Formats: sequence, C-alpha cells, structure tokens
Amino acid sequence: MIKAELLSIGDELLIGQVVNTNVSTIGKLLCTIGIDTHRVTTVGDNKKDLLRAIKRAWKESDVVIATGGLGPTHDDISKKIVADFFGKKLVRHEPTLRQVRARFRKFGYATMPVANIGQADIPQGFTPLRNDQGTAPGLWYKQGKKVFIILPGVPHEMSWLMDKWVIPKLRKQYKDKASGVILHKVLHTSGVGESSLAEMIGDPQKFLGPGATLAYLPRIGGVRLRITVKSNTQAAAKKILLGVEKYIRAQAKQHIYGDDDVTLEETVVDLLLKKKQSVATAESCTAGMFAARLTNVPGATGVFPGGIVSYANEIKEKELNVPAKILKHYGAVSEETAILMAEHIRRKFGSTIGISITGIAGPTGGTKTKPVGTVWVALAQKGKKTKTQLLHNVGDRAMIRERSVEFALEFLRRALIEG
Amino acid sequence: MIKAELLSIGDELLIGQVVNTNVSTIGKLLCTIGIDTHRVTTVGDNKKDLLRAIKRAWKESDVVIATGGLGPTHDDISKKIVADFFGKKLVRHEPTLRQVRARFRKFGYATMPVANIGQADIPQGFTPLRNDQGTAPGLWYKQGKKVFIILPGVPHEMSWLMDKWVIPKLRKQYKDKASGVILHKVLHTSGVGESSLAEMIGDPQKFLGPGATLAYLPRIGGVRLRITVKSNTQAAAKKILLGVEKYIRAQAKQHIYGDDDVTLEETVVDLLLKKKQSVATAESCTAGMFAARLTNVPGATGVFPGGIVSYANEIKEKELNVPAKILKHYGAVSEETAILMAEHIRRKFGSTIGISITGIAGPTGGTKTKPVGTVWVALAQKGKKTKTQLLHNVGDRAMIRERSVEFALEFLRRALIEG
Repeated sequence: MIKAELLSIGDELLIGQVVNTNVSTIGKLLCTIGIDTHRVTTVGDNKKDLLRAIKRAWKESDVVIATGGLGPTHDDISKKIVADFFGKKLVRHEPTLRQVRARFRKFGYATMPVANIGQADIPQGFTPLRNDQGTAPGLWYKQGKKVFIILPGVPHEMSWLMDKWVIPKLRKQYKDKASGVILHKVLHTSGVGESSLAEMIGDPQKFLGPGATLAYLPRIGGVRLRITVKSNTQAAAKKILLGVEKYIRAQAKQHIYGDDDVTLEETVVDLLLKKKQSVATAESCTAGMFAARLTNVPGATGVFPGGIVSYANEIKEKELNVPAKILKHYGAVSEETAILMAEHIRRKFGSTIGISITGIAGPTGGTKTKPVGTVWVALAQKGKKTKTQLLHNVGDRAMIRERSVEFALEFLRRALIEG
Repeated sequence: MIKAELLSIGDELLIGQVVNTNVSTIGKLLCTIGIDTHRVTTVGDNKKDLLRAIKRAWKESDVVIATGGLGPTHDDISKKIVADFFGKKLVRHEPTLRQVRARFRKFGYATMPVANIGQADIPQGFTPLRNDQGTAPGLWYKQGKKVFIILPGVPHEMSWLMDKWVIPKLRKQYKDKASGVILHKVLHTSGVGESSLAEMIGDPQKFLGPGATLAYLPRIGGVRLRITVKSNTQAAAKKILLGVEKYIRAQAKQHIYGDDDVTLEETVVDLLLKKKQSVATAESCTAGMFAARLTNVPGATGVFPGGIVSYANEIKEKELNVPAKILKHYGAVSEETAILMAEHIRRKFGSTIGISITGIAGPTGGTKTKPVGTVWVALAQKGKKTKTQLLHNVGDRAMIRERSVEFALEFLRRALIEG
C-alpha cells in the first residue's frame, strides 16, 4: 500500500481564519487510485516548523503532497524551504515565465507586477506542473520510489492541478506496483440516532469480512455508515464490500436513503423526476436556501419552476395570499401561515407540490411560546391534505436555517416515497 | 507563549469524506485567549498512528486538544487509547450516566441503547466536561503545567464544549502566566489581484513593526490581508497593529471594504441600512443563493422584503413580466432579460433597488455564443439607468454560482457607495 502524507501550510489554517478544504479534496482523489493518506500535518508560515514537518513526512511516507505558500508575496516561503531541504537551487524556467506573462495579458493587464517573475523560479530537478488557473505552477519531484509534490493553496487551483497532472502522474508512477486496493462505500441514513442504528445493525465483528471496517458518522439530519475494504485486488475488495453492504441494508433498510456521494437533494430530484412531480417553494427564514440546495442538482430544471422568498410579512400577504388577519392572529411563524404559503405557491407556480418554511432563526425575535429555533414546514399536494411539521431546532442562526432545509428535504423525500 | 497542538481523529478526514471545520473553530477560540496553535495533526481511527500522534503532541506542546472518536460505536477508540497512554483505568462516572439517560428520556426514547452506558466511563483522574448537546462528555486532564483535552468530533457539540468549558478553564489555568498576546486583524479587499495589491502596499519590512507579520490570502472575489502582532502586552500589540493597519489603509484605500470577521453581506446590509435603501431579488441560475447570503445577516429583515426564484422561463414571464418574445429573441440569459427582471422585482416588491442574476451554471446548457459560465447581473434603482454586467465565470457549477453571488454583492456594494 502506497502511503501519502499531506502537508497544509499557512498561519490562516492555524488561527482558524480559513477552513482547510484542500485535505478532503486531495484525500478523496488519492483514494480513487488506491493511495492511502495516513496523516495530515498543518503548520504555519514558519521556516522551522515547516522544515521539521517536511523532513518527517518525507521520511515516513511514499508520497508527500504539500499545499500553500507558493504565491508571489513575501509571506509565501514554501518553495524556498522545499528547495533548501532537497539541496536544490532555484532556476528560472522560461516556459513558465512566458505562461505567467500570457496570463496577465489575457486578463487585460498592460504590465505584469514584478513579483510574479519569481513564480517561474523552480528548484533544480523539479518538474513544474503548468497551472491554467493561476500564476504559481505546481512542482513535482521524484527520488527513487518517492514523490514530493507542492501545489498552491488556493482551492480551485490546487484541485485543477491535482486532476490535470498529479493524479495521472501518480497513477503512472505506481502502476506496476502491487499496491492494494481501497474501496469505500457510504450509506446515508436518516430518522435514527447513532446508537440505535448500531443496535439495529449489531456487532460488526459478526459480519465484517477480512480487511473490512465500518464507521458511524453522525451529522445534521442523519448518520452516514462508511464501509471500507482494503484488499489485494479490485475483485476481492468488491466482493467483501458487497457482502457487508447487503447485510447492513437488510438490517437498517427503511432508514437508508442513498449511497456514496449521493446527496439528499440528488435523491429528492431523482424521485421527483421518476414520479413526474414538481415542487415550488415559499421560504421565509431560510430565504432561498431550500431552492439553492435543490438547484445544486443540474437536473432540477425539470422539476423546479421556482419559488418565492417571502422574508417580509407584506410579501407573504401580497405574493402568497396569507391574509393579514392570519398573520396577526397566529403569527408569521405558525402552522396556519405555513399551510397557506405551501398551498398558494403550489397553485401559483403550477407545480404538483408546494413546500413552505417559516421560522425564527434568531438570534433575536424569539418569544416565550415561540423561542428562537421554532420552525414550521408545510407540504401541499394536489388532492391531499397538507402535511405540516413543527421543528424545535437548536444551534445558532446558520444551524437553525440549515437544519430547517435538511428537514424539509427529508419531509419531501418521505412524501414522495409514500405516494 | 502557550503552545497548543490540535489532534483531529477519524478516517473520514483522511479519505476526504468530511471537511475538517473543527480546527478552524478551535484555532480561532484559542487566539482569543493568547494561545498559539503551532500544529495540527490528523490521523485515522488507528491505534498505532493515534498513539504516536498523542505522544508527540504531549511532548511538544503545553495544551493538546483532540477531537473525534468519542461516540458510542465500535469505531470510537480515542478514549481507550488516551486512557492507555496516560496509564489510567476507565471508571464509571455516575452523574454522567444519569445525564446521558436523561437526554434519551428528554427526546422521547423509552429505553437507552446499551452502547451509551460506556459514554459514562471516564479515565481515572480525568474531569468529565458535561455535554448538553450530545451523549459523549468532553474530558480534561491536567498534569503539571500541561493540559490534555479530548472532545467529540461532531462540530456543534465540540464547539459548545469549547465555549462552555474549555476556554474558561484554559483562561483560568494560564491566567498568571506571562503568556504573550497575539492580535490579528484582517482587511478585506476586492477588485485587485494579489501581486498588484502587494506592489501597491510595498515592502513589508519598511512598515511592519516588531513582532508584526502580514499575509496575503487570495479567495474568490478578492484578497484578504491579515496583520498579526505578537507582543508581551495587549497595549504594545495594539499600538503596533494600529500603525501597520493605518499604513496599509493609506496604500490600498479604495479596495478595502471591511475588516475582521465582517463578511461582504454584512457590509452590504450595513450600507443598505445606513443609506435607507432596500433590495429585492430575482434569481435564475443562483436560485435563492443571493437571498440566502444576504439573510445570513440578522439585520437583513429591515432591508430585504424578499425575492423571486424564477428558475423556469414561464416564471420569468408570469411573475417577472419578461415578455415571451424577449425570452425567445434574446434568450433567458441576456442583458435584456436581466434588466427586465431587476426592474420588475423592484417595482413588484416595493424596494428601492432590484437585483437580478441569470446565467448558465452548467454542466450542460452552454452554446458557442453563450458558453457555460455566462452570467448577466442587473441592478435597477428608481430614477436611474439600470446597471448591468456580463460575467464569464470559470469553474464547476457550484463555483460559477458562488462567483455570481459574490459579484452581485460587490456590484450592489459599489452602487451603494457611489450613491
């Protein structure tokens, strides 16, 4: 098994200014070519710490992928330190310089800031990886069976370089090595807690084949089950994986809504398409978040005409026909209002289903009877009684809104399955 | 300076299934009490790797905060390994058991799954940190001047435990230590690239005071400048920071739109409030994302009546009065359609400003003349000519949508500043 270590470089990661998404992007890609990420180390823009981290990673791993600190400004120190560690000089790489200059011209700059010339300086013996998304090339260095890679930290540049150069090169580099296979499968569940699900499924030692593991990953709205199998061949790994999956599905059946990278919104759009249904949205506290989630899925075009964000009460009145006396008597956050919103948007937008969300996301606006986190969701279907659900969401404003959307998606999924 | 190391535990972090947001939450909180996070190490649910990481962290740091692997299922191994490392036995902690049982009752379960009894087993000599957000308590262990903390990995539980217990306890523990002070200030810029900004600001050695550093952090839509000052006293650090900030503001003035944790949407809501303006939205390809961003800010209530998500053409026609012949002749993604959408939503929702976004987010739907990434944004103001902007966004569907929203917010900010 080829072992990789990721090095994330940058003070912004340590002081919490930036969430490190690069690690998950790279980890996922390495899995697809059977490389095992065994550790991630994050250090600041600090010569001593970075040098130690490089030394340790290079010693203990086959592949090191470092990200960050390749930019044109003074705080970008990674390239110099990597060059020093390997005892290499920086030399100007003319094709890279031409490419960087061309990039500035393309974006309409008459001159290129001088600092960018340095982007074309490459440690001797390193291969530059052309970066079509920015000015800093990635760098690739092979020594015996080991590879050291350094990429810019800007997520879309890093991710482009991984796809375009790093993954194909790694695949080639290790192709004749009998490197095992790692397969993952994730089953998504909803409507059941972690420990109850574990009771339902039972002792993993009784059903996990050789090299297989099972992990429980709780999140807002559900628990994901991850099956991992490491084996020598693809066929062997697949067989073990299928056995475990079959067993788990038989135990937790009604709670599993999808697998792998399928998102809840993809499942919902899929069901809408299959059942020839469509949905329109009337959102208050979530203000477009439900519509935005649904349209993450390109296929939403066929099942989602649109929606109304009725943030102010006058919009609920004027655009969604919620009578002023209902708003006054029951309030904007009430079952009555939610029902009228869902039913009206369905008729107005000509969809088969209407969904509404109205609640108090906070931090202010809560009362004794309707504290922050109180949310009503309603689902209207032609010829059926409108379904409603009252939520008492916990967390901050962002979490209350996210949980509301998550629930509404699940509410819609259940309605679609049932009928 | 007190040095902290964070240990993130879980295979899901290495295989890229989950983005590690805990590190940024903890890093940010530690900054507020002058504790320096010098390293983050992420390892899988694997005894050998975890033990090595614990050993190293404990040796090289004053404070270790580990997260993950405290749940009730078989794959949660952290507590046992930590207990082994410190040579402690696990003992049942009755108050915790009562609390866990009460939690199950509160959520309407008649019985508690047996697996949860183990949640109340605590390594001898460790202090349990009561968890009101879940069933696994945090753990606190002090040895001499060092502290080892372990928390559940579920983000909102971890974050509650940090706020409620860990930060106050750390503050108390290190209060009489002459631990230096770290101050950060972030200035947000837009409309200028990283290297041009660096040329504008000049050589940092000429204006950075003692203990001060400056970092350039590029992101979608702009570059953040982070000033960091480490000093012995709050007053000294503050003085240095103010000097640096003043210098930078004088150089990059027109490009700085906000500072610190101020988001672009907060700046925009603030400007709307100050200028007594309001905005309504008509979104097609972003389908509610702009409205959702704006309403991240609680104060949006006063400036945002709502909007229409006109995903399908018939909704653009029916709800936004875009004539069928315009849609047919110019297309849904055109300057003409964008202008009509923005002007109509403004009148319909009675706001002073109307904003529209219509584009091709992909992956399909692009043509030769309007490739994927083509987006029109229009901004209508009463008594003024409607402004428009054509974007050619790069990236995948999610990025094209995000860049569109980011631009529209900046477009609105500029219109508000200009008056």
